[in-house]
Amino acid sequence: MAQEIDLNADLGESFGPWTMGEDGAMLDLVSSANIACGGHAGDPEVMFRTLSEAARRGVVIGAHPGYADREGFGRRIIPMTPPEIARLVAAQIGALQGVAALAGAQVGYVKLHGALANLAAADTAVAEACAKAIGRIGGLAVLAISGTTLETVARAQGLAVHSEIFADRGYLSSGQLVPRNQAGAMIHDPDEAAVRLLAFLETGLMPVVDGAPIPLQAQSICVHGDSAGAVAMAAMIRQKLEAAGVAIRPFLGPKP
Amino acid sequence: MAQEIDLNADLGESFGPWTMGEDGAMLDLVSSANIACGGHAGDPEVMFRTLSEAARRGVVIGAHPGYADREGFGRRIIPMTPPEIARLVAAQIGALQGVAALAGAQVGYVKLHGALANLAAADTAVAEACAKAIGRIGGLAVLAISGTTLETVARAQGLAVHSEIFADRGYLSSGQLVPRNQAGAMIHDPDEAAVRLLAFLETGLMPVVDGAPIPLQAQSICVHGDSAGAVAMAAMIRQKLEAAGVAIRPFLGPKP
Amino acid sequence: MAQEIDLNADLGESFGPWTMGEDGAMLDLVSSANIACGGHAGDPEVMFRTLSEAARRGVVIGAHPGYADREGFGRRIIPMTPPEIARLVAAQIGALQGVAALAGAQVGYVKLHGALANLAAADTAVAEACAKAIGRIGGLAVLAISGTTLETVARAQGLAVHSEIFADRGYLSSGQLVPRNQAGAMIHDPDEAAVRLLAFLETGLMPVVDGAPIPLQAQSICVHGDSAGAVAMAAMIRQKLEAAGVAIRPFLGPKP
Amino acid sequence: MAQEIDLNADLGESFGPWTMGEDGAMLDLVSSANIACGGHAGDPEVMFRTLSEAARRGVVIGAHPGYADREGFGRRIIPMTPPEIARLVAAQIGALQGVAALAGAQVGYVKLHGALANLAAADTAVAEACAKAIGRIGGLAVLAISGTTLETVARAQGLAVHSEIFADRGYLSSGQLVPRNQAGAMIHDPDEAAVRLLAFLETGLMPVVDGAPIPLQAQSICVHGDSAGAVAMAAMIRQKLEAAGVAIRPFLGPKP
Repeated sequence: MAQEIDLNADLGESFGPWTMGEDGAMLDLVSSANIACGGHAGDPEVMFRTLSEAARRGVVIGAHPGYADREGFGRRIIPMTPPEIARLVAAQIGALQGVAALAGAQVGYVKLHGALANLAAADTAVAEACAKAIGRIGGLAVLAISGTTLETVARAQGLAVHSEIFADRGYLSSGQLVPRNQAGAMIHDPDEAAVRLLAFLETGLMPVVDGAPIPLQAQSICVHGDSAGAVAMAAMIRQKLEAAGVAIRPFLGPKP
Repeated sequence: MAQEIDLNADLGESFGPWTMGEDGAMLDLVSSANIACGGHAGDPEVMFRTLSEAARRGVVIGAHPGYADREGFGRRIIPMTPPEIARLVAAQIGALQGVAALAGAQVGYVKLHGALANLAAADTAVAEACAKAIGRIGGLAVLAISGTTLETVARAQGLAVHSEIFADRGYLSSGQLVPRNQAGAMIHDPDEAAVRLLAFLETGLMPVVDGAPIPLQAQSICVHGDSAGAVAMAAMIRQKLEAAGVAIRPFLGPKP
Repeated sequence: MAQEIDLNADLGESFGPWTMGEDGAMLDLVSSANIACGGHAGDPEVMFRTLSEAARRGVVIGAHPGYADREGFGRRIIPMTPPEIARLVAAQIGALQGVAALAGAQVGYVKLHGALANLAAADTAVAEACAKAIGRIGGLAVLAISGTTLETVARAQGLAVHSEIFADRGYLSSGQLVPRNQAGAMIHDPDEAAVRLLAFLETGLMPVVDGAPIPLQAQSICVHGDSAGAVAMAAMIRQKLEAAGVAIRPFLGPKP
Repeated sequence: MAQEIDLNADLGESFGPWTMGEDGAMLDLVSSANIACGGHAGDPEVMFRTLSEAARRGVVIGAHPGYADREGFGRRIIPMTPPEIARLVAAQIGALQGVAALAGAQVGYVKLHGALANLAAADTAVAEACAKAIGRIGGLAVLAISGTTLETVARAQGLAVHSEIFADRGYLSSGQLVPRNQAGAMIHDPDEAAVRLLAFLETGLMPVVDGAPIPLQAQSICVHGDSAGAVAMAAMIRQKLEAAGVAIRPFLGPKP
């Protein structure tokens, strides 16, 4: 049984007068926070507030860049060349780092958002562009979806890569997520999600909807912060893991 | 007579499909480039291109943050508190630094844009907010309008501060610029502008429209890049200064 | 005692993935809906949805234009000339009308939003610019804050003008609202708000914080839709008014 | 030989401080102006100015909606469902109509822009969505690329449809344009463009790069307004056509 694991969530996804999710409650539960960078969500005010609240709690901070598409919340593929994507990602990471410096916080890693994350998970040129931007900025680890092209590419470029699995998503035997429009895509019951994760942590095998459990590597579990019941799901998972003796610790140090 | 002086211009102010000014020609003439950061102008593509072209020519790079108001080109005062301004400035500087890292370029200083520059020139709280953002990010000098509150405040906060005068603007005996809607605000004749600058470099005294010349400190001359005739004006000034034995060199090293 | 009165609320103020208020519940309570036009809030999807839901319930529809400032939610004064404001307002009203045509709905009136409403309440040139835009488009009434410059100006331009009072705001003896940062600005208790409104409907006199009740004209009561407790406040007011024999009916026909 | 033909161009594509093309010169040459609606380009100020200048010259006005993607100038396909596209198109047409009312101008037709035009040229559901938005608003003709799905669909929905050919683009025997990355895509020589158009107007047959000339229907010729040499190209075409006895007249009345 793994002795410890990271919990991460996408946070700082409010914008101007609009609130998304319950960032305060989530920051009490996760060990790593992926903070939006003003592209698909967030703005300098939201960034500052989220960075400050994460830093105050000792939550490790990641930049969470995505397509600069607020209407689509970064979930639509905006046609861009890989070099254009590298520049977009670099600008967004930089923006968060600038605000982090003001907040006395530090950005430790990068996790891509939404449609950009999905594309980089499968497209080598996009993954290379993102990894290049991250590598050129320097001092940043990558949090990638376990088993994806980005994971391989970023590691090949010499970046420190950590992998995540999803607490509330079903898997295919290919290692990919069950598409959202298919049965088994979402796990809505917090109890069921926790049981699955404990089984995975014990065996290293993830249940799939179409065959025998598959091996996955993961240093982090992604819990969602933007849906109803998100806090309850995260709380249940944290509680069940800790009850089973699994410590919730950031995949990036410093560790207690 | 001063032996050397910097020439700076606001560049990288195109946006998406729209071009502003002749950045290539201006980069051949200036020693320092104030590059827009995606707020009042610029986007990741424009930033990358301008940063790359400046770096290739050895032109020193400054971040040029402004109100995030493209329609108004950063020339309107958007009501914001000083802390909000600090976060805006930090995010914009960071964005440019992120893209600079990708381009293999380095941001050496910060010069505020438009209405924000005018406000920080006169309002202590705004000047302090901007200086704080710059100081927290670190490693950045400030290029301020000579004789302004920002100059004083940034210096008091321990920042390296350099001062600029304008090649094509008339001055009042208060040290402020003649407002654009008054006679004498603009100097349209390149020859006249060059003559004034040479006189200033020789004597340290700037002619004013309402009295005797006044003493000003300046390590840089701002030439405009976004108006018709901008390139001709900058070329004439550079040529006349060099003909008079004044070298055009960045106020920030490395120097030849 | 007035036999009937309109209840209006600002709706359609969500944006992209972000939700503002409980539009469905509010549309069950109000007789007129001021729908954001994509400036301070709203987008074509939100407009279509809100227009469709209002039309289905027979709620009368108003355009609710504001400064094109999403970060500031239209609550900041963006420096614009009156002609610029007229063009902004015309574009926003038109956008809502275009989507309304698609939704099979009709826009009956215009109510300005936020900082623009406050400015038009006091500044004659701005009020005239807004009234001009509304008048040129044609077929639209104006819903103005009772006792304001906009009310006078729009009426002088021959527009059909209706006036509103606020359910949850305190008044000064000048007829203006108590500024939000002063005691008595907000009325948080739904019961108290209802009692005040009933007294006003009976007497035509509005209580003020600094003197004797003042006479105000009103064909509509504005209830807020974007704060916690907004639905409860609106429901209480509607119930108390109806219990007192006051019918909730739109100030614009058709009436039942 | 056709006795008359319309010349149309995409205009009003400036934005804020950025200028695109030479609208004044083009408005002296064309008989119909497709005016951007604030989506891919334009804003209320640019719309008002362009509408006013077109109306003053008696140039017929069309709305020119496109994806709300300024960075990409509407040339990228933003993933949207057909209903979402209908709402986008309706909002943009409405916005232009609102500003037109203020300017004392009238919008007579709709021509889609860029990637949206290309999609509606080939995709029935998108074409139907656009035609539905146009039809619901009412009183508007459609200017479609000759031989496309939009042309067929809009006509089937009972709309008045007019067709255009391009002055400076090469054609395939399929009736489609030669893709921009292939030889023969662009016709750069104004004289050659004029000769081709005259031949087409005489015979109704368009030369193609891969076979014998093909029959096309056209009531309008599209000349581009946003490239270097655009004015010279448009002027040459107008002059040659008039010299050959072909009057330049809007496809929509009133005609002289």
